Amino acid sequence: MNILQLETPSLILDKGKLEKNINTMNRHLQAFDVKLRPHGKTAKNIEAIRMSMANHSAGITVSTLKEAEYYFSNGITDIIYAVGIAPVKLNKVIGLIKKGADLAVILDSLEQVDLVSRKASENDVEIPACIEIDADNHRSGVQPDDPLLLDIARALNQGEGTSLRGVLTHAGASYQSKTIDQLKEFADVERTAAVTCADILDQNGYPCQVVSIGSTPTVLVAENFTGITEVRAGVYMFMDLVMSGLGVCTVEDIAVSVLTSVIGHQKEKGWIITDAGWMALSRDRGTGSQAVDYGYGLACDVSGIPQVNLIVATTNQEHGIIHTRDNSDSCMNKFPVGTMLRILPNHACATAAMHDRYHVVDGSVEIVDMWHRVNGW
Amino acid sequence: MNILQLETPSLILDKGKLEKNINTMNRHLQAFDVKLRPHGKTAKNIEAIRMSMANHSAGITVSTLKEAEYYFSNGITDIIYAVGIAPVKLNKVIGLIKKGADLAVILDSLEQVDLVSRKASENDVEIPACIEIDADNHRSGVQPDDPLLLDIARALNQGEGTSLRGVLTHAGASYQSKTIDQLKEFADVERTAAVTCADILDQNGYPCQVVSIGSTPTVLVAENFTGITEVRAGVYMFMDLVMSGLGVCTVEDIAVSVLTSVIGHQKEKGWIITDAGWMALSRDRGTGSQAVDYGYGLACDVSGIPQVNLIVATTNQEHGIIHTRDNSDSCMNKFPVGTMLRILPNHACATAAMHDRYHVVDGSVEIVDMWHRVNGW
Repeated sequence: MNILQLETPSLILDKGKLEKNINTMNRHLQAFDVKLRPHGKTAKNIEAIRMSMANHSAGITVSTLKEAEYYFSNGITDIIYAVGIAPVKLNKVIGLIKKGADLAVILDSLEQVDLVSRKASENDVEIPACIEIDADNHRSGVQPDDPLLLDIARALNQGEGTSLRGVLTHAGASYQSKTIDQLKEFADVERTAAVTCADILDQNGYPCQVVSIGSTPTVLVAENFTGITEVRAGVYMFMDLVMSGLGVCTVEDIAVSVLTSVIGHQKEKGWIITDAGWMALSRDRGTGSQAVDYGYGLACDVSGIPQVNLIVATTNQEHGIIHTRDNSDSCMNKFPVGTMLRILPNHACATAAMHDRYHVVDGSVEIVDMWHRVNGW
Repeated sequence: MNILQLETPSLILDKGKLEKNINTMNRHLQAFDVKLRPHGKTAKNIEAIRMSMANHSAGITVSTLKEAEYYFSNGITDIIYAVGIAPVKLNKVIGLIKKGADLAVILDSLEQVDLVSRKASENDVEIPACIEIDADNHRSGVQPDDPLLLDIARALNQGEGTSLRGVLTHAGASYQSKTIDQLKEFADVERTAAVTCADILDQNGYPCQVVSIGSTPTVLVAENFTGITEVRAGVYMFMDLVMSGLGVCTVEDIAVSVLTSVIGHQKEKGWIITDAGWMALSRDRGTGSQAVDYGYGLACDVSGIPQVNLIVATTNQEHGIIHTRDNSDSCMNKFPVGTMLRILPNHACATAAMHDRYHVVDGSVEIVDMWHRVNGW
């Protein structure tokens, strides 16, 4: 079967590109004494995660406990759930630990230590926790110079049912970088914050087994991992237009795309109407603040060759309006009704999340496999 | 069980508000000789659609053939698939018609008539089609004054395997209205376009059984349905912040919300961090262009009472950052870690699409039912 026989919209994953992206990351990290802990939140799929874990001894990162359960049921035991823990999630955490998972949570408050400690000791388990550090004023986490850092470490070590696993940070603001040099600065900020905190903790008798940093763009540009035990990244497996805008991949590296059918035209306006709206592409407009704005995605022909300047300019629920950047109608005749196109996403995590499976190809339109996704919570 | 026992994020649907919204629409339409054809794309759920169909003889509208199959398997036979038909979808259309569905497609080109006719006659079925009309230069459809209208009608009537069912239009640009008067103008534009086309067709010997218009805001403000046989609307069942911004509901009418847990704070910034990011809320920023911008949603307490000025200002995949509009930290102490909040969505279709089920309540936090959604294609 080939993708021309699929119903549209459908999600396509090119295994060869996935492999190449994984190799690029692995080659980059080979020069350094640091482990990779792939993030399971982009692929949400065991086959892709297994490929990303080959030759690495570190475990994985997850963004939901449903991912944790799924990857654990597929044999992965070393897992960090990298979203601040909430009381209502502790039953699942405890269930996984009781089944044998080495599952660590993250937290940034004494309230959370107290909640985790009480629930864990009630259930006679120990929940390891990383302290989340706010490296770049972006979201959650303790400031590196906040005395709260030591208070949390002390509480984790003294509390029943808890233990300090280490520190973890994510320079999410790096996505706003305009140049590779800015990205490198974020990578440095991320490393410095984590190492500073790990040092403070160590000097006070709280050694960190895990000193974890990462995001795809900072890890790929970083050249110094001193003091870091592991890096986390997820998007690097698939790549996307935002990453190409940041300069850490090319458009040709993007491994996921949404297959769509042309369903009509507005010839006077130069519009091609397709059946991939925001339901298939997501509402993500990540390239909107970058030098090259791709609207809701860049159009490729069915074999995956990017069509220069042909972007999804507008979306409704089940409609995408494609036109050239200058809105010329020169390409109308190339794409009659029924033509299939492939749309490269702004943000791989967001676009893939709109689908429940990957139709896997490998450099051609032949479908070689079907891989599932573990969506939801 | 009550919603405080749910894991977060979860989608909550208030049945009482759903009922009230359905009654509001029904009461409005009672004064006119027009049928309602509810759109199944918002709820994607049979229980809600059954409630919306009570006292109406018209069928439903769908945005995917998966919806069509689902609603048909639940006993609904009169269905319009209101996205321009593509060749790759015809097998499913034919399958449904052969099983007894009265399924009509829409189209706006002679190419589509030809594709539908060939496939239908090969399979010995007749596929009824509505001609899509472009009322407001918004998306797809034939311009009312385009001679193509008659060409398509003629081709549908002469072609084997096809028949003309009528005309259909949707004034999607109405969502950009700033005042009720502007909305009323769009409602008039929508009606005029459909009736003009139906008249032209009728005068040329192609009578229209269906003259179909609609969107939630235009239908709710319209006071003239002369010449219209049916109206379509979907969002009205749930309502959302965009509809409240358009003035066709209040914030209190919104029937869907996303339950979330507070997972942390950045006290100096006045930020409340929750576990409802764009994965739970969607990336929809529909109120961004309205007079009141609610970010990614308006926060309510767990019982559903809106917290004035408390909005989801920023989202990442599994994080939402809530703060007051003026970014004061006055509300910090009200929401310790573990507190549950409910987020009202910008766009009900987009937010509900991120979830696979509704936890149904009825004016309290008690869960009275669980309803499924038919996502995907």
